[in-house]
Amino acid sequence: MDYTEAFTSAVARVRAEGRYRVFANLRRYKGQFPRARWRTPDGDVRDVTVWCSNDYLGMGQSACVTESMKQAIDDVGAGAGGTRNISGTTHYHVELERSLADLHDKEAALLFTSGYIANEATLATLGKILPGLIIFSDALNHASMIEGVRGARCEKHVWRHNDVAHLEELLKAAPAGAPKLIAFESVYSMDGDVGPIEAVCDLAEKYGALTYLDEVHAVGLYGLRGGGIAERDGLLDRIDIIEGTLGKAFGVMGGYIAADAVIVDAVRSWAPGFIFTTSLAPSLAAGARASVEYLKSAHELREKHQERAATLKARVREAGLPLMESETHIVPIRVGDPVMCKRLSDALLDDHGLYVQPINYPTVPRGTERLRFTPTPLHDDTMMDELVEALEEVWTRFKAVRAA
Amino acid sequence: MDYTEAFTSAVARVRAEGRYRVFANLRRYKGQFPRARWRTPDGDVRDVTVWCSNDYLGMGQSACVTESMKQAIDDVGAGAGGTRNISGTTHYHVELERSLADLHDKEAALLFTSGYIANEATLATLGKILPGLIIFSDALNHASMIEGVRGARCEKHVWRHNDVAHLEELLKAAPAGAPKLIAFESVYSMDGDVGPIEAVCDLAEKYGALTYLDEVHAVGLYGLRGGGIAERDGLLDRIDIIEGTLGKAFGVMGGYIAADAVIVDAVRSWAPGFIFTTSLAPSLAAGARASVEYLKSAHELREKHQERAATLKARVREAGLPLMESETHIVPIRVGDPVMCKRLSDALLDDHGLYVQPINYPTVPRGTERLRFTPTPLHDDTMMDELVEALEEVWTRFKAVRAA
Ligand SMILES: Cc1ncc(COP(=O)(O)O)c(C=O)c1O
Ligand SMILES: Cc1ncc(COP(=O)(O)O)c(C=O)c1O
Repeated sequence: MDYTEAFTSAVARVRAEGRYRVFANLRRYKGQFPRARWRTPDGDVRDVTVWCSNDYLGMGQSACVTESMKQAIDDVGAGAGGTRNISGTTHYHVELERSLADLHDKEAALLFTSGYIANEATLATLGKILPGLIIFSDALNHASMIEGVRGARCEKHVWRHNDVAHLEELLKAAPAGAPKLIAFESVYSMDGDVGPIEAVCDLAEKYGALTYLDEVHAVGLYGLRGGGIAERDGLLDRIDIIEGTLGKAFGVMGGYIAADAVIVDAVRSWAPGFIFTTSLAPSLAAGARASVEYLKSAHELREKHQERAATLKARVREAGLPLMESETHIVPIRVGDPVMCKRLSDALLDDHGLYVQPINYPTVPRGTERLRFTPTPLHDDTMMDELVEALEEVWTRFKAVRAA
Repeated sequence: MDYTEAFTSAVARVRAEGRYRVFANLRRYKGQFPRARWRTPDGDVRDVTVWCSNDYLGMGQSACVTESMKQAIDDVGAGAGGTRNISGTTHYHVELERSLADLHDKEAALLFTSGYIANEATLATLGKILPGLIIFSDALNHASMIEGVRGARCEKHVWRHNDVAHLEELLKAAPAGAPKLIAFESVYSMDGDVGPIEAVCDLAEKYGALTYLDEVHAVGLYGLRGGGIAERDGLLDRIDIIEGTLGKAFGVMGGYIAADAVIVDAVRSWAPGFIFTTSLAPSLAAGARASVEYLKSAHELREKHQERAATLKARVREAGLPLMESETHIVPIRVGDPVMCKRLSDALLDDHGLYVQPINYPTVPRGTERLRFTPTPLHDDTMMDELVEALEEVWTRFKAVRAA
């Protein structure tokens, strides 16, 4: 068996599809966000504007977050030093879980080391503690939910994206008494559309299913206190399990679920991905808590964020660029080909100092390759002028498709 | 379907086995480690000595680590703000991967958000990129490896713990041309025994298998530069993939693999648990790098650590307590019953201010419940006197079994 050959060909398959990834090496400077310095593969250093960060509000740069982190490091040191059960629970973890439960108006919350593992571990564990569970999963659910559903090793049905009629068909066909779970997202991060939360909750009630909602791209950003789309739409009490991240709008790192105390206690007691891992570093918990609490009352920042996204969308549309219609803060522009997508992204970076990653398969379906922009409250009008001008230039130069 | 009832009974099953976990809420004070303050369930606060931290060398308290973290926060802020591919790669990540590759004398290394996800994602991905792979997994492998092997969805065989004759039997029975992987650990963290690395490598060579070694409880602690048991035993070049954590001896948080560049590139390109998650916070990467580099030349700290562990073992043995024979820095004392284990642990905490968690199923097999002590270079002779005296008192008071 020639292993080197096998690994080489695994990489070659990725290259052949034009989706081999070269990570841009960035050096950010606190206080200058969204400006950063990019180290080119040749070792040169150039100033760039970052247009694809998921630190949607720039909270990762906010003094309330960074000072809380530094204070926690001074107070207790670097890592947690153990799993949650074995010496790794500090008052920072306890308080952050309380903040998050409060944010979502739930009895309890449970921290994980990432939103990815929160999804994967929780969904897989629900399959184990609810014998006979049937999971109904939206077709565009995130990779971490897909892995969790696979790990649950139970019957599963995939409903067409956001299609509640299809969901109802599948629910109706399942045995009435069987435990059921509907797993979906609020904001789908690559298209910027929103899940039909209320309709899903109605169906869940009608067919006796639990609801599991990934609000990763909505927490901190929607709702009067940043509780997400379910808060905005007054539906918090109809979602059984809300899952979120501390790594995007909250600007730090980590993930969580919020739910009834008994659900949290069951997951806490049974999920390997929660139990068998060093707990979140105390400084991350401290920073995240500061961020969550700050955003509970920073509604003007959320409004500014929405205004910036609306402005960029309008500008892109006016320029006749193929904006994909998004209901949220995500601004995707369709390219439809992985090689072109990378070419446009490279030209924006090399020739215009604008950093936006090409979004290719497997992150999005083949044929829907795109550039995905995430304007923050810190992206001003001048930056938007620069961006739209550059987009027009590269679209023309490479004869990229203009129709959406 | 009554979901509350289902969750309640899932928790009740854990309680009925005497293994329901109540996390101790600790407030550490940097500079005072291993002393900490414990908030009792009634809200009182008491001084305790921590005896079960996996911050084995106290590096989480070391100024070189904490100052690097604070500097990184000042320089670039809190979170990475994106996945590695989408704006989440900073020079801290690049440099840390270089440090880790060098530590293990490999061409490349790849960071994950935890050692757990490093194991899970890498093993599951190897199953996908090596069609027909057969995995040979040690019976006592960590939960994260077990989940990874399950996720690989390929043929697997479990060999009796550390039993190379059994491993050879299984290898011999498998088709000669099939791709094979042997997955095992160097230091098994609950018993403190060591995997037969050289014998496994001989078999791997004989039967054409890849070797995958979890050095989570050995990195930083063994070998002249802290490269682990494989370094200590001069076997680095015979291990194909080394997996480690940044959260134990290195005192921070995160995980990684180190291997040939092509293996790392394949995993980097294919593993959902690497691709679809916010990358490690820059401050963690900075702190971990400082720790890894510091420990490359801090051999006296490793020697002190070994001396402390040997001393505690000798003291426990002299006292006639049921020490489980360990070849490493782990000092387990057998109890053999989950309820007794919790009772001893509670009494040590309540009556003696000594914090050591009961280790029950599923962390260890039923019937082998234990207290597991991890003396660090900062645990002095006086603390050891206190501990052994307290152990004798509680062992006598509760009539715990004395035979090992
Ligand atoms: C919808 C969705 N869920 C979960 C995650 C994982 O969250 P985290 O980055 O905290 O691992 C992501 C992105 O990373 C996501 O887009
Ligand atoms: C053998 C082993 N591998 C992997 C892990 C996971 O490492 P981490 O704590 O970084 O997730 C652990 C413990 O947590 C472990 O004991």
